[in-house]
Amino acid sequence: MPFTPQEVEAHLEKLEGWELEEGRWIVRKYSFSNFMKGIAFVDEVAAISEAFNHHPFITIDHKTVTLRLTSWEAGGITAVDIKEAYQYNEAFAKYSG
Amino acid sequence: MPFTPQEVEAHLEKLEGWELEEGRWIVRKYSFSNFMKGIAFVDEVAAISEAFNHHPFITIDHKTVTLRLTSWEAGGITAVDIKEAYQYNEAFAKYSG
Repeated sequence: MPFTPQEVEAHLEKLEGWELEEGRWIVRKYSFSNFMKGIAFVDEVAAISEAFNHHPFITIDHKTVTLRLTSWEAGGITAVDIKEAYQYNEAFAKYSG
Repeated sequence: MPFTPQEVEAHLEKLEGWELEEGRWIVRKYSFSNFMKGIAFVDEVAAISEAFNHHPFITIDHKTVTLRLTSWEAGGITAVDIKEAYQYNEAFAKYSG
């Protein structure tokens, strides 16, 4: 079962930088001081998503990396999406210090 | 000076898998047998684009990596975009063998 819209909003209030998009994705844009730092971050995102066997949609636009998460099979946002988003924020922390 | 539409088309006829999009991008979708192979390819794309100091717009949608190239400063497609696209195709060849 996916979270209700109210449950999603409650999670997003605590999840830095993530927003709801089109009611079915959670999205965050991460900015880096140069392109290769963004690529190093994407490598970490890849490893995390492999461990979850749940892969975000990733875009790399020069120094900006955008991640979009949803649970297709559940038809919305689930606990897995939220857990992963926290891990991406943790991974990002070392690039933004 | 960017290439004329006719010049772009002449290049694309020889450049496997690349197509013109919205008259100002060249685009190719690359498919992989698994997610991590796509990520390894993106790492090679990143190194190539750093060498050119000219970065494609990259999307990663599970096992599909899409690259989009344009030369903003020239207002269209230039020789740099075409050269880079050839190098991405070369890099891809080792994943599709």
